[in-house]
Amino acid sequence: MNIKAPRGTADILPKEAEKWQLVENKIKDICARYHFEEIRTPVFEHTELFQRGVGDSTDIVQKEMYTFQDRGGRSLTLRPEGTASVARAFVQNKLYGEVIQPVKLYYFMQMFRYERPQQGRMRQLNQFGVEVLGSDNPAVDAEVIDLAMTVYRELGLKSLKLVINSLGDAESRKNYRDALIGHFTPVKEELCPDCQVRLQQNPMRILDCKTDRDHPSMKTAPSILDYLNETSSQYFEQVKENLDILGIEYEIDPNLVRGLDYYNHTAFEIMSNAEGFGAITTLVGGGRYNGLIEEIGGPTTPGIGFGMGIERLLMALEAENISLEQPSELDCYLISIGDKAEKKAIKILHDLREQGIRADRDYQGRKMKAQFKTADRLGVKFVLVLGEDELDKQVINVKNMATQEQQEIGLDHVAKNIREQLDGGERHA
Amino acid sequence: MNIKAPRGTADILPKEAEKWQLVENKIKDICARYHFEEIRTPVFEHTELFQRGVGDSTDIVQKEMYTFQDRGGRSLTLRPEGTASVARAFVQNKLYGEVIQPVKLYYFMQMFRYERPQQGRMRQLNQFGVEVLGSDNPAVDAEVIDLAMTVYRELGLKSLKLVINSLGDAESRKNYRDALIGHFTPVKEELCPDCQVRLQQNPMRILDCKTDRDHPSMKTAPSILDYLNETSSQYFEQVKENLDILGIEYEIDPNLVRGLDYYNHTAFEIMSNAEGFGAITTLVGGGRYNGLIEEIGGPTTPGIGFGMGIERLLMALEAENISLEQPSELDCYLISIGDKAEKKAIKILHDLREQGIRADRDYQGRKMKAQFKTADRLGVKFVLVLGEDELDKQVINVKNMATQEQQEIGLDHVAKNIREQLDGGERHA
Repeated sequence: MNIKAPRGTADILPKEAEKWQLVENKIKDICARYHFEEIRTPVFEHTELFQRGVGDSTDIVQKEMYTFQDRGGRSLTLRPEGTASVARAFVQNKLYGEVIQPVKLYYFMQMFRYERPQQGRMRQLNQFGVEVLGSDNPAVDAEVIDLAMTVYRELGLKSLKLVINSLGDAESRKNYRDALIGHFTPVKEELCPDCQVRLQQNPMRILDCKTDRDHPSMKTAPSILDYLNETSSQYFEQVKENLDILGIEYEIDPNLVRGLDYYNHTAFEIMSNAEGFGAITTLVGGGRYNGLIEEIGGPTTPGIGFGMGIERLLMALEAENISLEQPSELDCYLISIGDKAEKKAIKILHDLREQGIRADRDYQGRKMKAQFKTADRLGVKFVLVLGEDELDKQVINVKNMATQEQQEIGLDHVAKNIREQLDGGERHA
Repeated sequence: MNIKAPRGTADILPKEAEKWQLVENKIKDICARYHFEEIRTPVFEHTELFQRGVGDSTDIVQKEMYTFQDRGGRSLTLRPEGTASVARAFVQNKLYGEVIQPVKLYYFMQMFRYERPQQGRMRQLNQFGVEVLGSDNPAVDAEVIDLAMTVYRELGLKSLKLVINSLGDAESRKNYRDALIGHFTPVKEELCPDCQVRLQQNPMRILDCKTDRDHPSMKTAPSILDYLNETSSQYFEQVKENLDILGIEYEIDPNLVRGLDYYNHTAFEIMSNAEGFGAITTLVGGGRYNGLIEEIGGPTTPGIGFGMGIERLLMALEAENISLEQPSELDCYLISIGDKAEKKAIKILHDLREQGIRADRDYQGRKMKAQFKTADRLGVKFVLVLGEDELDKQVINVKNMATQEQQEIGLDHVAKNIREQLDGGERHA
């Protein structure tokens, strides 16, 4: 027997997990500065939530969801994206009643999409995302984009491109929809079967189609920007002005429609321009979704957010040769010789750790030389040796690996002594 | 329509999520000191892994798993516990070939069990856990228990009880199994239907049965400790000695058998003794599983670990009235009056955050008085006011909320100025 992780999933091993922690800590720090607070929602939801909150006609809902019945006969789905879950939690927990509005939330979630696995596209993927619920101030749109850009900037990414668009309000979208139907209907038979269905259900998504993207009708398709009404147009102008104030560069792409049904007004993506990054360059997708909360049973509440893939972020860092590795962080390695010394070592190790010191020892009963080798490999600051001689004298031999100095320290105050040496070292560092 | 989170699951809202972060950060810090490294595995695995790695005859596998077919016809299961997943990752990624052994891993995972939801028992639950793979040194058993106790101690829990037992090696277990079959067979008809099946499949688990726990045959059942062979008995003695060295108190409970098939030698649980904690008092369950890695296709490798429920941990903290709440951590609230000032505020807010300052503003266009109220409620350190007068003078009014002092600071260096004030405050704090 040889059981592997399911296709399209991957383990994150310790060396890699360290990078994830660094990225997550940086993001959490930025979220605190931007005054976003964490929310966590269950891994699965009632399937209906995604049918309504993502959209029945989307590829995600139609083809990519992990849907199953639980033992009680409920139809459940592993979440394919974060916004619908957060919106559901916002409604169920009545966060619209919080005194301070808007509610600014962030999350780290695994997402699940049954797609053909390829580089940068897994069946279980990880996203950081934010959602701001309760404000339609265009300064919020800029703040959300600013937060995403700040994450990348502070991690050191340079080759980025921000693309924005406006999908307008309901009226603008309706007019644009009619124009698209008028434009594509004459060539309907030449489009792929999916697009033929989309033509009635959600014609904007034809613009997103990978199969038909070279069809001549794509180039001549009407632009949403020509169909924005006064309100929508002004809103978009303000978002752009706010980005200008922040010094954030952007391109406008009227074909940026995003795959989800519930977006309106601002839509945006951030791509990596780094050479050799691969075919899928989108790092972040987001936008405004003022109708969503109502759609799933809450009061009228504007909203905006984004989802940022962590796997893609790590790939982008690699493509730009940005290293996240840290030097080894073990402070002490404890070597004991003989049974009696080993027993004493158990207690000393505990005492070291209690003093906040990162410490470890050998458990395999190896020779002293092999243990010293391990200590070297781990890059520890101090090696502590406890043999019979030391035990008789009630001391331990402490070797500072940087200076190669050795000293004998009384067994009872070794933990405190090392703590002081580490503190002194850090103060002077 | 009114969609709720699925039965047995819960959202973790911001105020609560802050506590989770504190607990997780404390645990990560302790793991670093004990030199454990993080591993992350997928949410679902091939069902076969749990059938083999948890055990076909366990309640978990028979009754409680979320099992489903993916679109490719694979049988997948949301992980019901952590050890099997980590063991699978250990084998698949050949961690048994790492130079430094044992491999000391920790994880934070959501687990999924289809049980009747009750207080402290959810269908999606969260666990912190550790696994040490590659050593059968009884000092490792003590280290693992020490780590769990340290987590509780450093979080402030006092009412704890550690219970340990030995399940012995294969030979001891076989002898004990025969003795149990001999003991329970005469009363078989009086036991519950589950136990009648267990009598053949896994008679040790009869001792764990909640239905039959008052049956007279339970009291007179043979004890595993009387069936340990020399090796097993010595191993247990050494584990106990190591706990004594660490000053960790324990009780021995020969009926502690744990619900999973793959345990041998050391088994342990940590319970809360706190008053009003509720019926389910187990905070941690763990033990040694020297046969598991072989069972799922890897080389012979000893292992030991535990799983610690985070929900239960938080309940225990509450039962002991230990508060994890932190004071508000927002540094600045920015109030702007008028359109021009708002535009400027967008940039200043960004600059503050870039300086590492936690800052926010009003997005709802409320009156200054209402905004001051919000700043009060948030407990910020500084309120910054930017009106037309200030804009004309190119300054901003900065009010220190602790001292009530106000000063005017030039717009261009407000972020730096506040940064310096915050740093000074912290140095002197």
